[in-house]
Formats: sequence, C-alpha cells, structure tokens
Amino acid sequence: MSNGRHLAKDLSWQAHPRRMCPRTASCGCTQMRFCPFAQRVHLVLDAKQIPYHSIYINLTEKPEWLLDKNPQGKVPALEIVREPGPPVLTESLLICEYLDEQYPLRPLYPRDPLKKVQDKILIERFGTVLGAFFRASDGGELEPFWSGLDTYERELSRRGTDFFGGEQTGILDYMIWPWCERLELLKLQRGEDYNYDEERFPQLTLWLERMKRDPAVMAFYMEAEVQAEFLRTRSLGQPNYNLLVKDA
Amino acid sequence: MSNGRHLAKDLSWQAHPRRMCPRTASCGCTQMRFCPFAQRVHLVLDAKQIPYHSIYINLTEKPEWLLDKNPQGKVPALEIVREPGPPVLTESLLICEYLDEQYPLRPLYPRDPLKKVQDKILIERFGTVLGAFFRASDGGELEPFWSGLDTYERELSRRGTDFFGGEQTGILDYMIWPWCERLELLKLQRGEDYNYDEERFPQLTLWLERMKRDPAVMAFYMEAEVQAEFLRTRSLGQPNYNLLVKDA
Repeated sequence: MSNGRHLAKDLSWQAHPRRMCPRTASCGCTQMRFCPFAQRVHLVLDAKQIPYHSIYINLTEKPEWLLDKNPQGKVPALEIVREPGPPVLTESLLICEYLDEQYPLRPLYPRDPLKKVQDKILIERFGTVLGAFFRASDGGELEPFWSGLDTYERELSRRGTDFFGGEQTGILDYMIWPWCERLELLKLQRGEDYNYDEERFPQLTLWLERMKRDPAVMAFYMEAEVQAEFLRTRSLGQPNYNLLVKDA
Repeated sequence: MSNGRHLAKDLSWQAHPRRMCPRTASCGCTQMRFCPFAQRVHLVLDAKQIPYHSIYINLTEKPEWLLDKNPQGKVPALEIVREPGPPVLTESLLICEYLDEQYPLRPLYPRDPLKKVQDKILIERFGTVLGAFFRASDGGELEPFWSGLDTYERELSRRGTDFFGGEQTGILDYMIWPWCERLELLKLQRGEDYNYDEERFPQLTLWLERMKRDPAVMAFYMEAEVQAEFLRTRSLGQPNYNLLVKDA
C-alpha cells in the first residue's frame, strides 16, 4: 500500500479522488493512515486481494466533498466505485462484512452460522478492550486492558490453532489486530510501567509473532516510533498526517 | 407468546429452564418482557416461526445459573439447546443475524451484499435514535428523537415500498420497531408536550399502522399503559417484572 498525502480543504479539482482512482479499483477507501479502524478495512482488502484505491483524509480540515459523499464525515468509508451513486459505506466492521460477502474468495468469516456469530460476539466484546487500550495509551491503568485480553488468550488456547481463524488468519484475527500491533506503542509510551506478561499470555505471544509475518499485516504495519510521533504532533494540536509521505 | 413469570434468585431446581424447555424448541430465549432489545429477538423468532422457549429473568435479582451460562448476565441471550455446550449467544442484533442465517426460510436480510450492508448501516445508525428516545422518555428534549427519525422517513419514501423490507417486513423494520411501538408510551408520558407531526412523517405514519397488523409485532405488542406502569414501579426501585402474569 502507498502512504499518500492526506487531503485537506485546499484540495484542488485535479486531486479529486474520482480523477485519481485507477480503472482497476473496485472500491475507494477513504481513511486516515494512523486510524486503527481504517486499518481493519485495509487488512481485509489486502488479505482478500481486492483491488482498491486509498484516499487519505486530513481529519482536522476535512475536504468539502467528503461531507457531500458521507454526511457524518467518518473514516473509514468505502466508496463502491462501480455501482450507481456510487454508494458510500461506513463503520469498519460492517464494511469488512460486506467485503467478505461481496468477494467470496479467501473467506474470512466462518461459514457455519454458529461459529460465525461466536466470532462476531468476540469482536463486539473487543469494544471494551480497545476502550481500555485507549485509556492505557493515554496514561490510564494498564490492568483493564490486560484483563480484557485474558478472554482472547483463553479463546486461542481453547481453539488450539495458530490463528483465531484456524490454520490461517480469519476475521477475528484482523479485527483485533490494530490494537495488538500497538502493544509496541504502549511499551514506548509507558516505559518502566509497561508490564505485558508472557506467562499470562503464552498463546497470544506466539500469535503476535505469527501475525507480524502475515502479508496483509505487513502491508500496513507501522513502527511504534512513527505512531508515537503522530500522537505527539496531535497532542500539540497540529497532527502531522503526512509523516509517512516522503516529500512531507 | 406467553407472558411468563420472571425468574429470580429463589428459583427452585424444579423451575430450572432446562427442565421446562419443551422438546420442540430449537432455542431458549432468556429475556425480560419489558426490554426493547429482547423484543427484537422475539420479533425475528416469531416472524421466522422458529420454535423456541422463553425464560424470563428478574434483572434485579438474577438467578445464579444465569451467570454460569452467561457471565455478563445480559439479556436477551439465546441458548442453542440442541448444540453441545449448549452455546449461549448475546447481543440482540447478532442473535438476529444468526437466526436469519441458521433458519433460511422467510429471509429477513436482503440477499444482495450491498443492500444488506446498507440496511445494517441504518440499523447501526438507529443506535443514536434509540438513545434520543430513552432521553425523551426520561423527560429530555423530544426534537433529537424526531430529528433521528427524519432519516428513516426519507429512506422509506426513497424505497417507495410498504415496509423497509419491501412488500413484506424485513430486518430493518423489526430492528427499529421496539422504539416505534413506544411512541404511544412517549405520548402518555409527555402529555401536552408530545408533538409527533404526521406531516413531517407521512410515510412513517402509514408504516406504523401497517406494522401494528404484522403477526410477529402483534404477538409481542404491549399497551402503553402497561409499559408506563412497569416504568413507574421501576422508578420507585421495585420493578414489577410480573405485571403481565395473571396470578402475579
């Protein structure tokens, strides 16, 4: 994937995403490079090898056409470029479900309705864990985050497979990954306070290493130092969205 | 459907739901009769004519076995009685998605992935509307609730069909219905303040009347006066869960 410039209000017509969208793309993903929810959609697009085009948005100064397409101005948003309208989808998880149904090759959700809903319940419940991550990353207690991860350690151990999806990655792996990738960020932020315990999370520790070698994860992986630098600029009120753009 | 007694802590073994579950039931639905989220699951079970058994729970004094089965103690919860375990599912919307996939007769979700995700986005967005409903029902402003309903008025008008699901009810109809049924409750609670405007909601007004004649809606329908009486007992700190039980 590219690390393109984030488009802001002063966007000229020549840079309008419809003009930049390559003919091969099935969809355009409006996103922000440092957003873990947008990362979910990229992981699914990349894992399923769906041709797409990324449109990066400066969330502090949103371009006006973004609100025309997507009145809530949310990212990630997926524009289905080949459908009349074209329709714009929001909500990272719903976008991923749509992609898995619309592009049935390399399915990520289990086929069995019971297994499928059990994965969905674990994704839903991860909402509490990611909330605890954000609080920990913001200087709050670490234990609520570890305690949330206990459920996933037990589940991986119960399944007895390399990934939550079985012998290969599945939807649950990708939906929780963005916050697991950020363990390194948490380590950097918290210094000596950081108390991840490999004995408490033996299965997750092995899983983290396996995930880092997954092609879709590698395509969007970001070093903790870069994430930390983005958060630093944001905390100063001047988020540098274009940190990864070579000429930024 | 029955209006059974809500089980509390003092539940004897003879009244344990496993013993009461009829052989014909595919699943047991743990719920609370006045809960709009539980109503969603009943609407889907009834619309699809899935054989089930209801287990009503006194949420103030939850029976201990509930926490064994379902550690978060949430209702609604669906126990899949014929599967080993048996597994217990939570989250009203996820339960409904499971039921629609597991019992494919009388499908409620659109088959087309794009139409399906568009319905899901409208269900997700209704989360804000139902939040506004609860605040209005609690004495807060009415306008945020009406303003949330504007989206659904426009959508029904755009679809030009009797129901959101087309010529018959679909998932979006049932997922938003519990709060629309409670318009009568809001009217009772707010008296002269109540300002539902038929000119603002011409399509929804017709839809409300059609929905009230739907067999699944009729099976779980509750008069506003009964809902108001339950809320009155709850506001006094002594919710009467068994208001509808004949010998209560």
